[in-house]
Amino acid sequence: MITIAVDAMGGDVGLAVTVPAAAMFLQKYSDARLLMVGDEKLIRQAFAKTNIPTNRVEIIHTTEIVGMDEPPQHALKNKKDSSMRVAINQIKEGNAAAAVSAGNTGALMATAKFVLKTVPGIQRPAIAKFLPANNNKLVCTLDLGANIDCPSEQLFQFAIMGVHLVKALQPEKENPTVGLLNVGTEEIKGTDTVKAAFSLLKNSHLNFIGNVEGADIFDGKADVVVCDGFVGNIVLKTIEGSVRFIGNVIKEEFKQSLYSKWVALWAMPVLRKFKNRLDPRRFNGAIFLGLRGIVIKSHGGTDAEGFFYALVEAYREVNANFIESLEKTVEQDLSNLEM
Amino acid sequence: MITIAVDAMGGDVGLAVTVPAAAMFLQKYSDARLLMVGDEKLIRQAFAKTNIPTNRVEIIHTTEIVGMDEPPQHALKNKKDSSMRVAINQIKEGNAAAAVSAGNTGALMATAKFVLKTVPGIQRPAIAKFLPANNNKLVCTLDLGANIDCPSEQLFQFAIMGVHLVKALQPEKENPTVGLLNVGTEEIKGTDTVKAAFSLLKNSHLNFIGNVEGADIFDGKADVVVCDGFVGNIVLKTIEGSVRFIGNVIKEEFKQSLYSKWVALWAMPVLRKFKNRLDPRRFNGAIFLGLRGIVIKSHGGTDAEGFFYALVEAYREVNANFIESLEKTVEQDLSNLEM
Repeated sequence: MITIAVDAMGGDVGLAVTVPAAAMFLQKYSDARLLMVGDEKLIRQAFAKTNIPTNRVEIIHTTEIVGMDEPPQHALKNKKDSSMRVAINQIKEGNAAAAVSAGNTGALMATAKFVLKTVPGIQRPAIAKFLPANNNKLVCTLDLGANIDCPSEQLFQFAIMGVHLVKALQPEKENPTVGLLNVGTEEIKGTDTVKAAFSLLKNSHLNFIGNVEGADIFDGKADVVVCDGFVGNIVLKTIEGSVRFIGNVIKEEFKQSLYSKWVALWAMPVLRKFKNRLDPRRFNGAIFLGLRGIVIKSHGGTDAEGFFYALVEAYREVNANFIESLEKTVEQDLSNLEM
Repeated sequence: MITIAVDAMGGDVGLAVTVPAAAMFLQKYSDARLLMVGDEKLIRQAFAKTNIPTNRVEIIHTTEIVGMDEPPQHALKNKKDSSMRVAINQIKEGNAAAAVSAGNTGALMATAKFVLKTVPGIQRPAIAKFLPANNNKLVCTLDLGANIDCPSEQLFQFAIMGVHLVKALQPEKENPTVGLLNVGTEEIKGTDTVKAAFSLLKNSHLNFIGNVEGADIFDGKADVVVCDGFVGNIVLKTIEGSVRFIGNVIKEEFKQSLYSKWVALWAMPVLRKFKNRLDPRRFNGAIFLGLRGIVIKSHGGTDAEGFFYALVEAYREVNANFIESLEKTVEQDLSNLEM
């Protein structure tokens, strides 16, 4: 049995999203159970509407909720009985193997760091996510927004962690490749920090393929793409925006004329499959990598299907069982570097 | 008559791209003439193949070419008779209203800055481009890669120049909106530099709408999106990569089954229109904004159609006649700020 703690109150919508998602998840994964953390009465009511048996659901009652705009330090100090905090506590107390929240990213990061601590050798956790690329590849990209300014050592730590995550989730990749996101492929490109990170990566035993540019993310040559959280967050949202924008252009073109409308009717099954393949909900769920525990952040504004995928991501990562080995890897990789 | 100087030897391919593009351009724009700068004999041969009259073509013979990987300072010092340098000289000498090159970006920037100088008050030019957004809007985005590190004052200068360019090219926009590319909409987000730029923009008379995120580029709420060249270059290439990647996914889906292949036949005219609308060649041609002259950089690897659009971009910007007024605007905007 895999047990996952859920911040049932988190996100823009809360229970109306998290509980239907939990129901979908429990139906699909029969070896999973969920600790639903939040207002017990409301959670019970929400589950009653789903008509699924709740024998694999345990409710942990909490009285507080972290606001979506609440300053992280405020939440950390004053919301000790929040659904977010108590969900993370479940990992620390050994009751759950992972926690999932659609709540305030900054507060979730601060709380997770405070409760679980980072892996020794890792200064700060990074937000990592697998982005879709050509030929059905998935590219582990980090940091996607946890750290606005990253010294080169931190970028190097991201690479170590990303490689470890890829190995755990895609065991067929024995020696994952690492690319450093930059404005050109030449070694002399980029900021001083990025150049220093290039040198650290080049002199490490990692399978470093050099700088990669924005478009190279999609060719999948690099299994891991490393950048600071400022760039990563903007890249992630630019990709999301591109997908929506291009979807709009397709829609417009199929609405242009009587002929195109007629074609659209026939093309609908194909277009629907296309849309589904790039549906951002299917890629929902980013991991806070570098913590001594698995914490998954769901997009705050997602719906039940999106939150379902964040739960699936948690399930996959628990199965990959990589936290203990991450501690060893980091220790090894960093000591190799210092020699 | 509008006269544009062309670095005929520049780019990955050179004459086989620039001359056919020049021919297309001259056929379409009857009030334009071109100064083709490069190897006279080879240019003549290339024009002979196009079968167009060359009465609006003047060839300026040069003996040197700037290499695509040549260090900018090396080109600046040693290639005084390069097609790139002499094309830019034509602006300075009053022979041309603009110069277009598909050559080495760094060398082009260094040479243009050296020959033409920047507008007083502007520390360094930025690379600006109009990116497509929803509802057929175009968003002026800068810097796309000229300046890797930008202090806040420079980001503010980019905003002033971007607004001026939008006003000149889209006169229906009387008070263009400015957005600062960031990782969240709240004022407290981003690096210290970006926060300082926020404060400069907020306290200016510009129509500043605050921070915009990666996905917001496409909604067109901001007519001008400002960022440093590191982020901007990665964003630009991420968008280009997204467009190609999504195009591939569509192709794959239409090849999945007999049915989808049959539909593809009928959908072809619509898909072709869609593809054409997002064709990167149509958006080729970025301006080096902040110089005392119009220098347009074409993508180095583009084909004749792409280079044609870079020539069109130069033509449009010459017609907008904004260089002199840019000098006044910058002076005014910066003095307003200091008060």
